[in-house]
Amino acid sequence: MEFTASQIASFINGKIIGDANSLITGVSPVESGEIGHLSFIAQERFAHYLDTSKCSVLIVSEALITKEHYNSTIISVKDAYLSFQILMNLYQEMQGKKEGIEDGSSIHDTAVIGEKVYIGAFTYVSQKAKIGDGTQVYPQVYIGKGVKIGKNCKIDSGARIYDYCIIGDNCIIHSNTVIGGDGFGFQPTAEGFQKIPQLGNVIIEDNVEIGSNCSIDRATIGSTTIGKGTKIDNLIQIAHNVKIGANNVIAAQAGIAGSTTIGDWNQIGGQVGIVGHIKIGNQVKIQAQSGVNSSVNDKETVYGSPAISYNDYLRSYVHFRNLPEIVKRINNLENNSKDNTNE
Amino acid sequence: MEFTASQIASFINGKIIGDANSLITGVSPVESGEIGHLSFIAQERFAHYLDTSKCSVLIVSEALITKEHYNSTIISVKDAYLSFQILMNLYQEMQGKKEGIEDGSSIHDTAVIGEKVYIGAFTYVSQKAKIGDGTQVYPQVYIGKGVKIGKNCKIDSGARIYDYCIIGDNCIIHSNTVIGGDGFGFQPTAEGFQKIPQLGNVIIEDNVEIGSNCSIDRATIGSTTIGKGTKIDNLIQIAHNVKIGANNVIAAQAGIAGSTTIGDWNQIGGQVGIVGHIKIGNQVKIQAQSGVNSSVNDKETVYGSPAISYNDYLRSYVHFRNLPEIVKRINNLENNSKDNTNE
Amino acid sequence: MEFTASQIASFINGKIIGDANSLITGVSPVESGEIGHLSFIAQERFAHYLDTSKCSVLIVSEALITKEHYNSTIISVKDAYLSFQILMNLYQEMQGKKEGIEDGSSIHDTAVIGEKVYIGAFTYVSQKAKIGDGTQVYPQVYIGKGVKIGKNCKIDSGARIYDYCIIGDNCIIHSNTVIGGDGFGFQPTAEGFQKIPQLGNVIIEDNVEIGSNCSIDRATIGSTTIGKGTKIDNLIQIAHNVKIGANNVIAAQAGIAGSTTIGDWNQIGGQVGIVGHIKIGNQVKIQAQSGVNSSVNDKETVYGSPAISYNDYLRSYVHFRNLPEIVKRINNLENNSKDNTNE
Repeated sequence: MEFTASQIASFINGKIIGDANSLITGVSPVESGEIGHLSFIAQERFAHYLDTSKCSVLIVSEALITKEHYNSTIISVKDAYLSFQILMNLYQEMQGKKEGIEDGSSIHDTAVIGEKVYIGAFTYVSQKAKIGDGTQVYPQVYIGKGVKIGKNCKIDSGARIYDYCIIGDNCIIHSNTVIGGDGFGFQPTAEGFQKIPQLGNVIIEDNVEIGSNCSIDRATIGSTTIGKGTKIDNLIQIAHNVKIGANNVIAAQAGIAGSTTIGDWNQIGGQVGIVGHIKIGNQVKIQAQSGVNSSVNDKETVYGSPAISYNDYLRSYVHFRNLPEIVKRINNLENNSKDNTNE
Repeated sequence: MEFTASQIASFINGKIIGDANSLITGVSPVESGEIGHLSFIAQERFAHYLDTSKCSVLIVSEALITKEHYNSTIISVKDAYLSFQILMNLYQEMQGKKEGIEDGSSIHDTAVIGEKVYIGAFTYVSQKAKIGDGTQVYPQVYIGKGVKIGKNCKIDSGARIYDYCIIGDNCIIHSNTVIGGDGFGFQPTAEGFQKIPQLGNVIIEDNVEIGSNCSIDRATIGSTTIGKGTKIDNLIQIAHNVKIGANNVIAAQAGIAGSTTIGDWNQIGGQVGIVGHIKIGNQVKIQAQSGVNSSVNDKETVYGSPAISYNDYLRSYVHFRNLPEIVKRINNLENNSKDNTNE
Repeated sequence: MEFTASQIASFINGKIIGDANSLITGVSPVESGEIGHLSFIAQERFAHYLDTSKCSVLIVSEALITKEHYNSTIISVKDAYLSFQILMNLYQEMQGKKEGIEDGSSIHDTAVIGEKVYIGAFTYVSQKAKIGDGTQVYPQVYIGKGVKIGKNCKIDSGARIYDYCIIGDNCIIHSNTVIGGDGFGFQPTAEGFQKIPQLGNVIIEDNVEIGSNCSIDRATIGSTTIGKGTKIDNLIQIAHNVKIGANNVIAAQAGIAGSTTIGDWNQIGGQVGIVGHIKIGNQVKIQAQSGVNSSVNDKETVYGSPAISYNDYLRSYVHFRNLPEIVKRINNLENNSKDNTNE
């Protein structure tokens, strides 16, 4: 990475205040800026860094600029946050994508590999798997029989995708995530638990991102599904036959038990647990660490274990914290009551 | 998969109503049936699908059959759920098992490999490891020094089994699970924490299944043990020197801290935490998300964090939800009491 | 492992009582001792094992020795626990370290590999990565572009270290841990969530140990950092831009959300969740399963979800368990009050 202030200004249609030849070789958060680095200031509460940041170049929202000269070179734009995002996206695209099949990968003769695909060393592609154009499969990935992966996906090192699972276009699967492992289903008998075969698959629609170290189990029969545009963080458990809709955001270490259905545009907090066989509507918010054990209607916000309405939980929790005081008040009332009786 | 209705009927001793030549090529849940697919109806509440399912063939409990003709071909049996299980097991067996050592695996000269073993590409088998007859080790597995794996096991892609761990017969270890990593043991000193060597191992008895992305740590000295027939879901933490008995079921994302002992036939819910150095009896139920910080006797059911008796927790939680109302009642009592005093 | 009692006594400067030629071939916990094994007794409450242990050799704190003869050979030392630790460390060092580059690894021409390094088969080292002297990289590890790993580290099988992450000296990274995966950052739009590029890295200082199946995400810009001597257990989530100081201990399945700052010498319990953008001081204790949603000052101990002072939580929880009784008392007061009013 090596750009001048004027090159950067040209990408985002900005106006330069200061040295247009100022050279940047990296990016810093503004509060820990470094010489030779670029950062941005988009909010009033960070405006004081205009005078103190060590960054050589700062992209700044024009409304925050009050002087004609600063130590750093300033690139003035309408919305510094937006411009910085555009720049970072441009930068990432410039990095280019890997292409080609690396030595040491193992690809079955019957697998169908698209155009401009990257397959890293020690990756294993089983029979009749299909990998779409422009998809990047990093080293040490396992792809089972008959798996279909769409176009322009990125499958990170160590991901495992089991037999007959289907992944749409533009999906990202991070390292060591397991898609299509057996669901957890056993028949109890007097001698022990007998495994119920898990013969379904997992279907992941377009534009889904799944973090690292997740477990998304295959359905017993039918499919476990993750809808278009849903984003899943790290270390998350999705059990067999779960159906997740579109554009959900699920934070790290959440777990969803078997056969539960989740609508669209929900926000599920970190370490949330959701029991099996219930229905979460649309635009629901589930606070971190909640334990949801019954269905939730559209647009509700819930909290607690078991989860109840967010406001109710907070109100009750205020009193919970105050229980020693409440019990004292009851003691007093009882004492008064006795006094009255004794009189 | 391609079978006629009459072939399927013969496997499960069923009676055909309709077209015996009806061909099936897949399996669906009855509520989302597809033409050319097989499903089953075992419960009254699903009986309406007899008339509406798109499945070409339905296995149905005889008690639910009320007509002489249906759109789908019906296979009438005593218990449709049981018959369907038998069929799915048969089907899975028909898939066959892989055999042979794939190119690109790395197997130490001193390792002992049984008969009819499968070892996938990029799997690493260290010195003096033993792998029993009929065991399938998928690609990209790591097997440490002196590890012993029994007969007819399945070790999925990316599992790691560290030095001197022992696995019984008929075990299944899913992808990216780590068995025998160092326990978390440190000696605090003024300068920092000093690692305590973890020199024990993990012993897993027969018929155990362990899900994906689990961490089962080796003992400091002695063994971390998992008893016969115990089933462990995904993303579970078992710390050093934990002893787990037979036929337990442990749901996803549960964690058990060091040196705790767990008996037989317990049910441990998802996201449960159990502290170290305690004893869980037999036939105990621990509700999801509970935090167990003291020993639990046989046949108890516990809930909450810290966990208490299940019924007590629920009773208290009802009042917790009602605390704002309870506090209002106390306010009223105090006001009345003041009124009385003022009188 | 095969030593005589006298060899062992010489390592730890102990005095032998009994057969100096007694041979040991393994180590047991004293409560499940075996013939031919070594164990230790350091506490009064285990002293009865002096007479009953099956171990051939016992290291015993001198204060616990009351007789002149025991069945086992005794090695008397000042502090048996300390001596046993010294011995276990010696034993582990004797095991030696692996060296050399195994066949089947893939190392880019531009990578810089130090002296006495071990790189296992199927490990992938990308361009310009640097691996310091004496570091051991086990099989099936992924090391991204420009990664720097210090001296005498151990990177276990299946760990993934993404582009430009930096790891100090004497660090241990366990199996299947992912360092430098993308942080979970998305821009909401009417059509769905748009990925925010994650262009920072992860910096891990010296003497850090990270357990198995952890996810440590790279910063959006700047660095996610883990300070010197911090020890992290298994299945832990560290989100983007988190800053963790020195000598912290974090137990299994804890999760820390984005941009939170954590000081030094803190103890964070298992399954704890900490929200983003807050500050945890120094020497703080967070009890297992707590949900920390606001900053915590130095030396505080907190508990609950949301977390409050440990003592306050316990006090309130006692009353929570007693809520049915408390409500009965309120009912009585109300009845009495009515009686009074009726009088």
